[in-house]
Amino acid sequence: MKKIFFTAGPSELYFTVEQHLKNAIRDGIASISHREKAYVRMQQETTEGLKALLQVPDNYTIGFTSSATEVWDRMSENLIDKHSLHLVNGAFSEKFYKAASALGKEAKAIVAKPGQNHDLSSLQVDDRTELISITQNETSTGAAMPIEDITTFRAAHPKPLLAIDAVSSLPIPEFDFNQMDSLYFSVQKSFGLPAGLGVWLFNNRCVERAEELKSNGKYHDSYNSILKIAKMAAKHQTTCTPNVLNIYLLGKVVQDMLNKGIGQIRQEARYKSALLYQLFESHPKLKAFVTDKKYRSMTVGVADVENGSEALMNKLAEKGLIIGNGYGEFKNKHIRIASFPTHSKEQMEMLVDEINQLDF
Amino acid sequence: MKKIFFTAGPSELYFTVEQHLKNAIRDGIASISHREKAYVRMQQETTEGLKALLQVPDNYTIGFTSSATEVWDRMSENLIDKHSLHLVNGAFSEKFYKAASALGKEAKAIVAKPGQNHDLSSLQVDDRTELISITQNETSTGAAMPIEDITTFRAAHPKPLLAIDAVSSLPIPEFDFNQMDSLYFSVQKSFGLPAGLGVWLFNNRCVERAEELKSNGKYHDSYNSILKIAKMAAKHQTTCTPNVLNIYLLGKVVQDMLNKGIGQIRQEARYKSALLYQLFESHPKLKAFVTDKKYRSMTVGVADVENGSEALMNKLAEKGLIIGNGYGEFKNKHIRIASFPTHSKEQMEMLVDEINQLDF
Repeated sequence: MKKIFFTAGPSELYFTVEQHLKNAIRDGIASISHREKAYVRMQQETTEGLKALLQVPDNYTIGFTSSATEVWDRMSENLIDKHSLHLVNGAFSEKFYKAASALGKEAKAIVAKPGQNHDLSSLQVDDRTELISITQNETSTGAAMPIEDITTFRAAHPKPLLAIDAVSSLPIPEFDFNQMDSLYFSVQKSFGLPAGLGVWLFNNRCVERAEELKSNGKYHDSYNSILKIAKMAAKHQTTCTPNVLNIYLLGKVVQDMLNKGIGQIRQEARYKSALLYQLFESHPKLKAFVTDKKYRSMTVGVADVENGSEALMNKLAEKGLIIGNGYGEFKNKHIRIASFPTHSKEQMEMLVDEINQLDF
Repeated sequence: MKKIFFTAGPSELYFTVEQHLKNAIRDGIASISHREKAYVRMQQETTEGLKALLQVPDNYTIGFTSSATEVWDRMSENLIDKHSLHLVNGAFSEKFYKAASALGKEAKAIVAKPGQNHDLSSLQVDDRTELISITQNETSTGAAMPIEDITTFRAAHPKPLLAIDAVSSLPIPEFDFNQMDSLYFSVQKSFGLPAGLGVWLFNNRCVERAEELKSNGKYHDSYNSILKIAKMAAKHQTTCTPNVLNIYLLGKVVQDMLNKGIGQIRQEARYKSALLYQLFESHPKLKAFVTDKKYRSMTVGVADVENGSEALMNKLAEKGLIIGNGYGEFKNKHIRIASFPTHSKEQMEMLVDEINQLDF
């Protein structure tokens, strides 16, 4: 039976990936050197495609890491001398806070309850804060921060670097990259690729900040530090042998998305998300975990299941429909359903129909 | 025209990889979570296969990184307080020295000329040395260190940690893992996989050393630090979302190699390597760059080409045979030819015949 993965990443591959993978093998992409012209052209196509898809301004660098987890370290190491502020509302926002703390920073966390979110308009920011982290889409709980709130917040607090976790939401939210400094995502979520590549977009303010720390002898000069990434990215290269195949596949999927039209993809996302929350609202045994509609993620829907999530998940799995369980303490209580660009409207309708018909 | 890559990595894919990749897509390997049982079983199969293939003792951990380049950082960060010693004889051995220096260590390099190697029997080692790095197979020059020399050297200097760079040689050399502490390789070389995964084998002495540094407050507590890798590897997991597809493919290729027999693979390596050096000895325009036969690599053959390497490389490329150019200062002077397990005896015979027949 062919399975369909609605898990929140790794998830179902983007529907064109299998064909691109075949072409890659046919064309020897996995055998070319990352210092060759053919590679350089390929990385350039990928980053230029991304810049077009996401409307990224010219003062941004697109760098590659092994994972979003690595980006937390790279920011902690070289964009923060002492003081960072982390808006925590779930496991992943907390992980960046913990990473910065483990690397010796005086990281401060302001914590919202899981499933809730921060009221950015009333947030107090210490003058010493060098970097603020906002998790725009908290994959563990399905709580998202509206773009307008981020923009207003940035206007009120222009000085600290603003880092946005968009790991499981991009390319759906329409970010204004002029209202932030650093943004990162993982390819195995909404872009529907195999895991093993993080994408880090950062602007010149980040580079200047890192240079300042370096000149003060406070720079962790690792192989994939921000300044080395920036230097190599300017030549469309990476600091070490990268995941060439994934950078190629990302470029191809981005091109597919450009061809389809990001407007169309976003419109479908709104439709699928509406279907999902309508299910959570109407089904007697389901309850949307994020109660405030303003904060509901468009790409990861989380619901509390009366009597636990296991029976429902197992019954769906018997039909080849794989959904995610809850994260951490909610493992057996929640279901998490991804609504990524690869998931068609018809697939989402089928999933909702199946859940409505099942006895669990 | 179907190309055959004899480049020193990325190189020709192992001949079974395309089929394994198809199976992986069919079986949804790219969609499973790295915290699921199915993943854990898969990582366990890969590491147990590697331990069987390479005869790795039980006191070793097999960890995963993004690249061998990352391993240089991870060793510098948490296995060296101050003093490391690097036996440099080319670009890659020098890169570890530079990584340790960049991370603030008092790294010391002893430099042999490119194409030559160190006489380990006469080497002086400072008492303060905490870690010694030997590049068993220097990919930039084709100079290799015989295993016996490493064993004798270790017996004379048992105290410092001994780290072996086997990036482009494994699984060909028959290492005695009891005579070292840390060894690493990249999958895109002799294992014939797509790039984007480093494999780091380290023993309990390394773990104890890292714990000691940690207890003294001298530990860089990154997401993929040695102690976190060890903790997760004990559960057959990784510290972050890994390159799942490559860990799967590595396990499958290792199984193929076990089925073929490592003895057979090593015997073929000796034959192919003999062919290659015979070509370098007999051809009027070629000269083996490593003149001392004792130090000649079995997996990467490097030759100086009279009047430069470009004409020969281009003429071979017209026939679909892709060989590597020289590294760094030798870019236009040398050819580098990989003789990895995926390259059959027949392919190597064909390459040698073509070179003998070409006018360059």
